[in-house]
Amino acid sequence: MTADTISLLLGHPDPTTLLTPELQAAVESLMSANAYRILQYGPEQGTQGLIAYLVDKLNREQGMAIAPGNVMIVAGSTHACDMIGRLYTKPGGVVIVEAPSYADSIHIFRDHHVELCSVPMDQDGMIVTELERLLARLDSESKKPDLLYTIPTFHNPTGITLSHERRLAIIQLAQRYGFLIVEDDVYRDLAFESGVPANFYALAHGQGVLSINSFSKTLAPGLRLGWLVGSESDIQRFVDCGTTQMGGGANPFTANIVAEYCRNGHWEPHVAGLQTLYKQRRDVVIEALSKYMPQGVRWTHPAGGFFIWLYLPDNVFAQDVKRLAHERKVLVAAGNGFYINPADGNHNLRLAFSFARPDDIEAGVHILGQVIRELQAGG
Amino acid sequence: MTADTISLLLGHPDPTTLLTPELQAAVESLMSANAYRILQYGPEQGTQGLIAYLVDKLNREQGMAIAPGNVMIVAGSTHACDMIGRLYTKPGGVVIVEAPSYADSIHIFRDHHVELCSVPMDQDGMIVTELERLLARLDSESKKPDLLYTIPTFHNPTGITLSHERRLAIIQLAQRYGFLIVEDDVYRDLAFESGVPANFYALAHGQGVLSINSFSKTLAPGLRLGWLVGSESDIQRFVDCGTTQMGGGANPFTANIVAEYCRNGHWEPHVAGLQTLYKQRRDVVIEALSKYMPQGVRWTHPAGGFFIWLYLPDNVFAQDVKRLAHERKVLVAAGNGFYINPADGNHNLRLAFSFARPDDIEAGVHILGQVIRELQAGG
Repeated sequence: MTADTISLLLGHPDPTTLLTPELQAAVESLMSANAYRILQYGPEQGTQGLIAYLVDKLNREQGMAIAPGNVMIVAGSTHACDMIGRLYTKPGGVVIVEAPSYADSIHIFRDHHVELCSVPMDQDGMIVTELERLLARLDSESKKPDLLYTIPTFHNPTGITLSHERRLAIIQLAQRYGFLIVEDDVYRDLAFESGVPANFYALAHGQGVLSINSFSKTLAPGLRLGWLVGSESDIQRFVDCGTTQMGGGANPFTANIVAEYCRNGHWEPHVAGLQTLYKQRRDVVIEALSKYMPQGVRWTHPAGGFFIWLYLPDNVFAQDVKRLAHERKVLVAAGNGFYINPADGNHNLRLAFSFARPDDIEAGVHILGQVIRELQAGG
Repeated sequence: MTADTISLLLGHPDPTTLLTPELQAAVESLMSANAYRILQYGPEQGTQGLIAYLVDKLNREQGMAIAPGNVMIVAGSTHACDMIGRLYTKPGGVVIVEAPSYADSIHIFRDHHVELCSVPMDQDGMIVTELERLLARLDSESKKPDLLYTIPTFHNPTGITLSHERRLAIIQLAQRYGFLIVEDDVYRDLAFESGVPANFYALAHGQGVLSINSFSKTLAPGLRLGWLVGSESDIQRFVDCGTTQMGGGANPFTANIVAEYCRNGHWEPHVAGLQTLYKQRRDVVIEALSKYMPQGVRWTHPAGGFFIWLYLPDNVFAQDVKRLAHERKVLVAAGNGFYINPADGNHNLRLAFSFARPDDIEAGVHILGQVIRELQAGG
């Protein structure tokens, strides 16, 4: 990527937000005090100070009623997804995902040899009647899904939020058909307006739900830290597995830094600043789309997170847009990778508005608009 | 663990070696310079500066001829073992390990639903004729092992080193029967004398071997860092897998700290100091065993690493020793967990001499000797 490339490609946080004096102070204070302790193997469940902070925060903000035994520190949501794939699926078992879903999670589940099924979405998220239809079909084939993986809030790649009513309906289906709900909620804290639906874990009173979250989007991905909420027996299962027993708790060094930073009260105002920053970028991308996109192109209206999703006209293919835009130094993701059946994403693009500066977002969308017009004219 | 407990239980490095002024300086220098960069997602293969350092060191010291494309930075050997389990075994496939082997690696392979087979060891490591016999049996059942997992140097739990000749013979068998050799070589740098056999990767000229190593034993486990050496196509397979694509390179923050520390020339003298320290402890444990153990107890003579392995008389059970020693505040590992068939370790103990201070090692072995005498008398 050259310096004049505009990247709307990846879900990377704004680089200027990563290094703050407060984070620097947390590192310095830990290195000068008990650093030998945080350089050793850590407790399997994770750094206790960080768990205690999260329990307090989640109970206070998200209507949860959890205890330290319900939380495990993980090395980012990747670590959580992978452990869940390893411990909660059987080879050949069924995992249900949204269509579209996060390409890399799909990839992780594939690496665990499962069968993937998907449920289409509309503007309110996963369509429950379609999920019911899928469950009935699987049931008629005597297949019980191992789990449903969903990104309910500010969904990757679409930016859509699953409605409160649908969450309740999905919990009922999970109880009826006996599958686990895995919610990947890493964008939840990046809300641009109030009224975000409660998470699955809170709505289901902690029954049959694993809830994944991360510091990657709201603090710094390079620290490789996140957390997983589940029932005490689920958390114990993660604590008891081979990788946890061998490596100890996730990233003790950075977990202690983040615990120090959070307990000193720095994370919550930082997140508030990010909400303002990314909301402004969401507004920039939507204004630019309104200005530069030809007739026939539609897009979602994300109320938080990093992504917006484009629907292209039937005669414009995402791979062509991606290629031509790349030639003009604008990077975007074609929709194909986000579907189990890649052809389903032939006419979709994902734009990340988290990484590029506002001027670049506008310039990038301008170029995308030109490319799409040219492809429409030529098509 | 109370303050007066003596732990000979875990393979933890001496806590007083973890925090050094040089490591502290590396952290400070990075936090004040380009820290925003090391807080972002890192390159999938790992921090380039650390890879470059390792390539140079391994080629210089271990007779290897590797390029940067042969190395991946991992989040400790745990991460490497788990990726190998995920990508290089099939559910129901066969993994061969030593008897005994590292309990937590066995656990990781079990989590990947493989069938485990083991090969007995003598004072020169895995017995090659026994390996041949196993391979012939598997072959007669039309089973091809996915891989052989070995800890060839200063083995965990026994401290034994696999001889040069046997390494060559095992490479020939791997080529004949078509299985991958995975060497977990995390204790290699902690040699107490010269003449450590070359590693499998060097001996096999990089063909059909994955070599795992770690900073956990020779720098600090809390940083969660290690490296994996393999063919370019093997490394590419790890780079392309779901977890790497989702999470980016392993621990960019700590990898950059360690790269800075190593490139400033601090790691190699640090390791030399550890060799002296742990050699002294090995001497202390052996002297104490000679002094306090009753007739009929034997032990290995490790030339490096963290562990020594005891063979108890037939009428003394390791679980009883462990329990009674625990009552007297000495912690040791019973042999059972290190075997696929736990009963095979009924009369073995593993003592770690890495963590406790020399006086405590001597006091702990004294108590163990008393416990074993009492059990012998009672049995």
